[in-house]
Amino acid sequence: MRVRSVAIIGLGLLGGSIGLAVKARAPGITTRGWDRDPSVRERAAARGLVGEVCETAEVAVAEADLVILCVPVGAMGDAARAIAPALAPHAIVSDVGSSKEAVAKALAEALPGVCVIPAHPVAGTEQSGPEAGFATLFAGRWCIITPPEGANPGAVQALADFWAQLGSRVEIMDAAHHDLVLAVTSHIPHLIAYTIVGTASDLEDVTQSEVIKYSAGGFRDFTRIAASDPVMWRDVFLTNKGAVLEMLGRFTEDLTALQRAIRSGNGDTLFDLFTRTRAIRRAVIEQGQDDERPDFGREHGT
Amino acid sequence: MRVRSVAIIGLGLLGGSIGLAVKARAPGITTRGWDRDPSVRERAAARGLVGEVCETAEVAVAEADLVILCVPVGAMGDAARAIAPALAPHAIVSDVGSSKEAVAKALAEALPGVCVIPAHPVAGTEQSGPEAGFATLFAGRWCIITPPEGANPGAVQALADFWAQLGSRVEIMDAAHHDLVLAVTSHIPHLIAYTIVGTASDLEDVTQSEVIKYSAGGFRDFTRIAASDPVMWRDVFLTNKGAVLEMLGRFTEDLTALQRAIRSGNGDTLFDLFTRTRAIRRAVIEQGQDDERPDFGREHGT
Repeated sequence: MRVRSVAIIGLGLLGGSIGLAVKARAPGITTRGWDRDPSVRERAAARGLVGEVCETAEVAVAEADLVILCVPVGAMGDAARAIAPALAPHAIVSDVGSSKEAVAKALAEALPGVCVIPAHPVAGTEQSGPEAGFATLFAGRWCIITPPEGANPGAVQALADFWAQLGSRVEIMDAAHHDLVLAVTSHIPHLIAYTIVGTASDLEDVTQSEVIKYSAGGFRDFTRIAASDPVMWRDVFLTNKGAVLEMLGRFTEDLTALQRAIRSGNGDTLFDLFTRTRAIRRAVIEQGQDDERPDFGREHGT
Repeated sequence: MRVRSVAIIGLGLLGGSIGLAVKARAPGITTRGWDRDPSVRERAAARGLVGEVCETAEVAVAEADLVILCVPVGAMGDAARAIAPALAPHAIVSDVGSSKEAVAKALAEALPGVCVIPAHPVAGTEQSGPEAGFATLFAGRWCIITPPEGANPGAVQALADFWAQLGSRVEIMDAAHHDLVLAVTSHIPHLIAYTIVGTASDLEDVTQSEVIKYSAGGFRDFTRIAASDPVMWRDVFLTNKGAVLEMLGRFTEDLTALQRAIRSGNGDTLFDLFTRTRAIRRAVIEQGQDDERPDFGREHGT
C-alpha cells in the first residue's frame, strides 16, 4: 500500500505546509485541496499550496488514497461527514489534530467502515491561514500516529511512510497516552501563556503600554504562543479536558510549593529547581528540537 | 557631568555586554573590570570584554566616573562594601539588577554618602558567563533608571546618556513601580517557566524522553527561559517577594477561572481570551520588542 494522491481538507498553516512539503519532497504524489472559505481557496491556489484547489470537498477527495483533515479538532466530525459519500473505497482518512481520543471518536462515528488513522504532527508556528505554511515545517519534527485498535497495518505503514517523506520522524502511540503527553508539552504551556498575557493586559497598576515596553524581560516569549489560533486552541482544551485538567492540577501544586518557598525565603528550593531545569533545555537542543543559538537566535539591533 | 571611565564589577553576560557595547559604540570611554572568579577574569581578558581586567575590585574602580555592579542582586551589598574605600569622590555607583527596591536599600546602606543610582537594562539571554555577552544586547531595549529621592539630576542625566550611547532607550521610574512592572513582564514569566519545566520532568506517566521529543508543541519555549542563571533568579525572587507574590496571586486567579471554563466546557470564555491576547503580540512586535518572523525566526530543517 502506497500513497499516490492526497486530499487536504483545510488549507491553513498545517494543510498548506503539507501541500508545499509534498511538492518539494514527494513530487510524485498528486495533491488536491479544499477549504470551506472561498477566500482561503483563492489564496491557496495563488500560492500553489496544492496541485488543484477544488470547488467542493467531494471533488477533492474523490480519487485520493489519503485524505488529511486539517481543520480545528471541533470541526473534524462535520468535515468527515461532508466527505463520507465521496471517499474512494480504499481511502485512508487521517488528520493533524492536537487531541487524539476525541478526534478518533468523532471520525469513527462519522465514517463507519472507513479506514481512519488519526495522526498529529508536532509542529507549527503562531501564524495561521493559507499564507502561513512552508515546506520545511515538519522537517526533523515528530509526527505521532495513533492507530485505533484493529487498524490495517499496511495503512498505518503507508501513513508513516508519507510523513517520513515530508521529513518527519514518526512515532506510533496510543491515543490516550498521546493526549497526556501533549497536555504537558503543548496544551498546558499554551494555557499558561494565554493566562499570563491576559493577566498582564488586565492590570490596573501596570499599564498595557508598560507591559509591552518591558516585554523583553521574558514576557514576549509568552506573547508568541498566546498569538496562536483562537479556534484551534479553544477546541483543543474542550476536547482534551481530562488530561489538561489533570496536568494543570500538577502544575498548580508545584507552583504553590514555589510560592511557599518564596514567601518563606527558602532560596535552596528555588536554586535546586532552577538548576535542574537547565538540563532539560540542554536535552531539547541535543535532540534537535530547538535552536541552540541564545535567545532562539533572535536578531539583535546594531 | 559626563562619563569618561567605567568600572564593571562582575564580567558575566551583562557586565561583558556593557564592556563590548562601550568598545563598539563609545570608544572614548575607558573600561576596567573585575570579577571575583579568577577564571572569569582570565576569560574576560581573552575576549577583551574591558580595556583592562584588574586583579582587585579596588583597582578597577579607583579612577572610574561610573561603577556598574553586574552581580546577582543578593550579592550587591557585599560587592558595594568591597569597593567603598576605593571609590573616587565624584563616582556614580549603579547596577543592572532585576529588582530595584531591595538593591537601592542594600547599596544605600553599603555606600553612605555615595551617589547611588540604580538601573535595570531590560535585556538578556538565557546564557551566562564571560562568553555570553555581545555588543548589541542593549540595542533598542529599555533601560529603567530608578533614582532615589534627592538624587543629583546631573548624575541621573549622565547615567541616562551612558545607556543611550549603548543603544538603549531610557526610562526613569520609581523603584517600587519598577518592581511591580517587572514582576509581571519578567519575574512571573520566569517562575512559571521554571515550574512547568520542573513539573514536566517529574511526571511518572509521561517520561522525560517524551517531554523532550515532543517539546516543539510549545514546551521548548519555556525550556529556554528555564535555562536562565539559577543564582540570579533565586535572588530576584527573594528580593522582589512582595510584588512577585502579588502578581502570582492575580495569575492563579485567572488560571483558576480558565480551569473552570475548561471543566464546564465554556468555549466562549476561552475564545474571547485567546483573541484578546493576539493583539498584545502585535503590539510587542510593532514596538520593536520582538522579532516579527514566525516562530521567532527559528531555523527550520530542509
